[in-house]
Amino acid sequence: MDYVTIVGLAAAAITVFSLFPQLVKVWKTKSTQDISLGMFSLFSAGVFLWFVYGVLMKDLPIIIANFFGFIQAFIILVFKVKYK
Amino acid sequence: MDYVTIVGLAAAAITVFSLFPQLVKVWKTKSTQDISLGMFSLFSAGVFLWFVYGVLMKDLPIIIANFFGFIQAFIILVFKVKYK
Repeated sequence: MDYVTIVGLAAAAITVFSLFPQLVKVWKTKSTQDISLGMFSLFSAGVFLWFVYGVLMKDLPIIIANFFGFIQAFIILVFKVKYK
Repeated sequence: MDYVTIVGLAAAAITVFSLFPQLVKVWKTKSTQDISLGMFSLFSAGVFLWFVYGVLMKDLPIIIANFFGFIQAFIILVFKVKYK
């Protein structure tokens, strides 16, 4: 694996795992006032499109990263709608 | 341009612009209590790595999308640190 691929995989891993602290925070506090509904609506839709792009490209890292990214972003969005 | 590329560009555009409503929200309210410091630290680092990956790959859409993504994510992070 060349170093460019390693940078890309690291970038994918970090951006996907970045959602987890936010998910834990809203899960614990049930407080979502400062979170933007617009951001998590657009972000969920965008990450879902990345997942579709991965499927069309048959690119497993993109599929896996955005599958887990979408699940997390969508749960945060559900919390935002439920506890706004 | 084939439809797979269009899906990819749409995914990139939506995920980058998704940050803007959150940026406007923290700018206006100066309230960041519900925003996760962990999320925006990791997200800024990850998007910066995507930018580096784009430069290494000489891929202009990845460079542009993640340049603007990083600027927005980093400003939200600065607000989080300043107004926590």
